[in-house]
Amino acid sequence: MADSDFVNATEEGEIPTFGSSDKAKATDFANYFCSYAQLYHQKQMLADHNRMAAYHAAIMGNSEVFKDKVVMDVGTGSGILAAWAAQAGAKRVYAIEYTDMAKHARSVMEANGLSDIVTVIQGAVEDVELPIKEDGLTTEDDESSENQVVDIIISEWMGYFLLRESMLDSLIRARDKFLKPKTGLMLPSHATMYIAPINDEEERQISNQDYNAAMGEWAQFAETTKSTYGVDMNILTKDYEREQKEYFLLSSRWAELPANSVMAEPAPVKYLDMATCTLEDSKGIMSGDEGSTFSFEISSKDAPAQTISGFAGWFDTDFKSRTDEVGANAPKIPNPAYLTTGPEAGYTHWGQQVFHTLSSIPLIHGETTSIDGSLEMTRSKDNARLYNCRIRYNASRRKDSEAKDGKILMKGPVVEHVYQIP
Amino acid sequence: MADSDFVNATEEGEIPTFGSSDKAKATDFANYFCSYAQLYHQKQMLADHNRMAAYHAAIMGNSEVFKDKVVMDVGTGSGILAAWAAQAGAKRVYAIEYTDMAKHARSVMEANGLSDIVTVIQGAVEDVELPIKEDGLTTEDDESSENQVVDIIISEWMGYFLLRESMLDSLIRARDKFLKPKTGLMLPSHATMYIAPINDEEERQISNQDYNAAMGEWAQFAETTKSTYGVDMNILTKDYEREQKEYFLLSSRWAELPANSVMAEPAPVKYLDMATCTLEDSKGIMSGDEGSTFSFEISSKDAPAQTISGFAGWFDTDFKSRTDEVGANAPKIPNPAYLTTGPEAGYTHWGQQVFHTLSSIPLIHGETTSIDGSLEMTRSKDNARLYNCRIRYNASRRKDSEAKDGKILMKGPVVEHVYQIP
Repeated sequence: MADSDFVNATEEGEIPTFGSSDKAKATDFANYFCSYAQLYHQKQMLADHNRMAAYHAAIMGNSEVFKDKVVMDVGTGSGILAAWAAQAGAKRVYAIEYTDMAKHARSVMEANGLSDIVTVIQGAVEDVELPIKEDGLTTEDDESSENQVVDIIISEWMGYFLLRESMLDSLIRARDKFLKPKTGLMLPSHATMYIAPINDEEERQISNQDYNAAMGEWAQFAETTKSTYGVDMNILTKDYEREQKEYFLLSSRWAELPANSVMAEPAPVKYLDMATCTLEDSKGIMSGDEGSTFSFEISSKDAPAQTISGFAGWFDTDFKSRTDEVGANAPKIPNPAYLTTGPEAGYTHWGQQVFHTLSSIPLIHGETTSIDGSLEMTRSKDNARLYNCRIRYNASRRKDSEAKDGKILMKGPVVEHVYQIP
Repeated sequence: MADSDFVNATEEGEIPTFGSSDKAKATDFANYFCSYAQLYHQKQMLADHNRMAAYHAAIMGNSEVFKDKVVMDVGTGSGILAAWAAQAGAKRVYAIEYTDMAKHARSVMEANGLSDIVTVIQGAVEDVELPIKEDGLTTEDDESSENQVVDIIISEWMGYFLLRESMLDSLIRARDKFLKPKTGLMLPSHATMYIAPINDEEERQISNQDYNAAMGEWAQFAETTKSTYGVDMNILTKDYEREQKEYFLLSSRWAELPANSVMAEPAPVKYLDMATCTLEDSKGIMSGDEGSTFSFEISSKDAPAQTISGFAGWFDTDFKSRTDEVGANAPKIPNPAYLTTGPEAGYTHWGQQVFHTLSSIPLIHGETTSIDGSLEMTRSKDNARLYNCRIRYNASRRKDSEAKDGKILMKGPVVEHVYQIP
């Protein structure tokens, strides 16, 4: 029985909550959902004030939009967004939660006198049924399907580097099934992923030292196993090296980077309109996608540091009016809100994901370095909630006085590595 | 869908590798097996020299017993025990491994020129079939079942406090299916679990401080959530308290205790003869079992410290001749080996499991403290590989000069707590 028999992915590489085997669902629960059943984990998210402030502004700052509306909160956890929606004047809030945290959410609604408005439903949003008849819910027009009765979907679905956890799939399925197509609102409404070259040399060197130390230990271990215990394990050295390299060097790191670690204008690598994005969007960033290539220009004299240590990825989200054509007549959001997880805005629990280059790129006095490359982000084969990032780049240098397409002093080889986002 | 839908236990509370649903098997793989598929984890075990030395002595020190025998290694990992068995002269070794580590074990056998002797079989030992005809394997007599062709089963199956991981179930099933009943040997041959009162006051106080800090943070969090964000989460305080208490105070801790932390002669709480123990034994220590009660006598003047901080649990194993009646004529082990994970013998990766009492028990000058109580150890309902320990005790004091059944100065209330072994 191979390890890969136990994957949390459907045959199409989708997350298992939708139309998948018991085996895949069980693996998914053990690997993903169970941590959200802990209050400790909930508290960590609720204590992220950038996160809280943005959602609070988006909901409580737009109570005229929420007034008398039917709202769905996808993945309500302990229920804070659902509670705000009710406080903002919604007439009915369906708070969907897969884990036993649903019980706690129910307690919170009761304690805050919101049980009449907020109905907590425990289940996968792909499976739940709304009490359409009982609650007298209506669609926006005759063309809508009978389930499209929700005016606003709120959700805090974002993972590390936006897509990790693949919860976006569930959100898209919920939107397509339950949201009024023309007048429904998604909050957040838009999301953008960025990458930028960064200086993070101390951490990059620590990872390298840790890797070297691990391999040094292995060499000693293999020698001892051979000399003391008579079995030669050196045949496994290459596999151990690969395992340790993946762990120490080819995994992204969570970081709370200082604003001045960013070495060039961040490049948007993916833009999502939450009203129109698709399950394909959720699968990542594919070769050839708009935004999948980047080009950074860094002059030694403008840069905040003299070494590039790799790239950082993060995202921001908007809570604003719909911008798609179908939604042209949807209610407007009078007071847009904004949440960024970039280095400029201080702590969020998302932080940034840092992809250290295996060797650093030095900036040379009087010269400008160009870093041209591409980012692909695809789901891990064995775990549809995890992603790998393939980063390809090469660096070239010219005199500061030279134009961008002018004479090149040095052009490095193309470097390519695949990083796991752990 | 409640969290408890995803359990790795059969309906009878057994581990899922045997006759269980795909869902339970998948949960089990994610929660348990997958870490053993990492070389890093294998290296940690192979670098445990007390462990290595004991198995090496048991196998290589008894080559006359292994010569020309059929051996099975249950859970071979990267294959070291199987390699030793082959080097000790076995004619055939079946090395069973569930995870993809089996591939590495195969490489190790090839690199060490042992492939002709060692056959690595990937699968659950409950499911594998041995090549009985192809390899011309025979049973010990006409009464044996056709699968009972193995002379020696070696296995490193022990978990924290012996039973954690519940791998013993697989070993017992392998023994009953494959081992020659009268002449077969199990290595290790016997195992004993111990508990003792210990001094570990610094760690006990750190856990208490961490717990108090966590609850202090929660109080501030709940206040902020109410005052800044308008939602009262205080209804969850009790649940948070329980969650944190279970985590900080009612979970056992791994420790490498110094020998002088042991405050009284350790009490054996369970003894296993590997030739005869049953699946019931593997389920834990039940109320009323022999060894489930303990009585420690600690005089202030003899004790290495003046405070009792709780109890520690560990185990030892023997590699010696069979002691059961059925096995009276089985081959003898000329050079018995021994492995202990107690505080007296230095580091093992098992260490000891420490169960801190919620308040310490002070020893009083000139007095003897009796600690009488019981230990029950049962499987966690949701995870058949994890155990809970119910520890019940009360302390009483008498003058050092008073006999054990003499006049009591003070008798404390019965204290009872259930600890998880994480």
